Amino acid sequence: MCELLGMSANVPTDVCFSFTGLMRRGGETGPHQDGWGIGLYEDKACRTFHDPNPGAWSEVAKLIQDYAMKSKHVIAHIRKANRGKVCLANTHPFTRELWGSTWLFAHNGQLKGIKTRPLQFYQTVGTTDSEHAFCWMMDRIRKRFKQRPPEKELIDYVKRLAIELDKTGVFNFMLCDSKNLYAYCSTRMSWITRKHPFGKARLIDTGNTIDFSQYTTPRDVVTMVASMKLTDNETWIDMEKGEFLVFRNGKIVN
Amino acid sequence: MCELLGMSANVPTDVCFSFTGLMRRGGETGPHQDGWGIGLYEDKACRTFHDPNPGAWSEVAKLIQDYAMKSKHVIAHIRKANRGKVCLANTHPFTRELWGSTWLFAHNGQLKGIKTRPLQFYQTVGTTDSEHAFCWMMDRIRKRFKQRPPEKELIDYVKRLAIELDKTGVFNFMLCDSKNLYAYCSTRMSWITRKHPFGKARLIDTGNTIDFSQYTTPRDVVTMVASMKLTDNETWIDMEKGEFLVFRNGKIVN
Repeated sequence: MCELLGMSANVPTDVCFSFTGLMRRGGETGPHQDGWGIGLYEDKACRTFHDPNPGAWSEVAKLIQDYAMKSKHVIAHIRKANRGKVCLANTHPFTRELWGSTWLFAHNGQLKGIKTRPLQFYQTVGTTDSEHAFCWMMDRIRKRFKQRPPEKELIDYVKRLAIELDKTGVFNFMLCDSKNLYAYCSTRMSWITRKHPFGKARLIDTGNTIDFSQYTTPRDVVTMVASMKLTDNETWIDMEKGEFLVFRNGKIVN
Repeated sequence: MCELLGMSANVPTDVCFSFTGLMRRGGETGPHQDGWGIGLYEDKACRTFHDPNPGAWSEVAKLIQDYAMKSKHVIAHIRKANRGKVCLANTHPFTRELWGSTWLFAHNGQLKGIKTRPLQFYQTVGTTDSEHAFCWMMDRIRKRFKQRPPEKELIDYVKRLAIELDKTGVFNFMLCDSKNLYAYCSTRMSWITRKHPFGKARLIDTGNTIDFSQYTTPRDVVTMVASMKLTDNETWIDMEKGEFLVFRNGKIVN
């Protein structure tokens, strides 16, 4: 299995604190040492970092922790391989372009028979069931809508695809189209919104504490989504099985 | 204008030495301070690093120089913006997926009227004429071949597209499909193949010298392609205007 982390915020925000906790699980406090990746949006483009090496000791991960890159949307992933060998091509998050925006996808779980579903526009570069599921969803969205449709139509359609694939196995995932962060809970997913008045948070994996009030303004709204909660002194909301949430500017939009 | 660097090698090779020279031109020994990027292949996948900040002082660039990531194919680019603002979306190299491989593209020059050419499968995320040219080429290749054709057919077709676009302006570019590195010289491009017996090389931009014989085996073949040569004690071969070269495993294949 793997672990997922997503962020949606109304102002460009760095993800250093949470990312540091997540990376420790990449071989140190957790067994997810088969690679990691992160995508950070700037408008419709996405800066990605991928490393097939364990996150806990990755030089690239260290850079991201030290060098506070800010973004309104982030998806990060650490991998414990079950399908597909350990290599760059199998390292989440995966990216494709649609309607002139970069889309980003990361998955936790396994899907049975997914590779028998034919792909048309988007082909897999690696061998994971996760990338196949992403390409299949992208194909379907592309065929259904020639251009970006009204938000509700898009959200309803992504939800329909999520429910369809979830029936074939375990499909906890995060997807971002540069505007919305979509999160689906197949078996486990939690989220928390931090806003004024900001408080302190303590990372489960390092014991480190941060006082967010020192790094924020009263207008900031930042939501974190994670397959396993990252802090132990805040109240994370567990999503229900089959629940689908969409975040924009840090807030739930559906 | 911009500067380009490409590598084709028969064994995974690090590009630290040449990349260090190139990055100095990103604001220090050269004026190309409007962002930089690099893509390093591992099989059909590509690890990319993009930074809209000047290469000469980039923390991410420093990481790549220190942390010797090895690859058989590399394309790097430093940008001096003339069309399109300075932002992540406009930072080369650009990537798209075709036939289950990541394709990478970087361009030096300007193309007149390129944006009037309609795009179908691949849309631009940013606003550069370069990305539009890349998407247009990818569209054409995709329409022409349902799957990867015999090498000669593919190479001839890419060359035809290059010549067509070159007529509209200045089109020095590098393209990689994970197997071949394509280089087209519109106005300036040089290359050099390093092989046994390896010698010393001195970077123009730093004065640093490296003795490649200490880092190679007699079987290694490494070709560097650059819009402006990077060393001053080796014989780089200038490409002619309109010349198109394709490298694989460090050797010319057409």
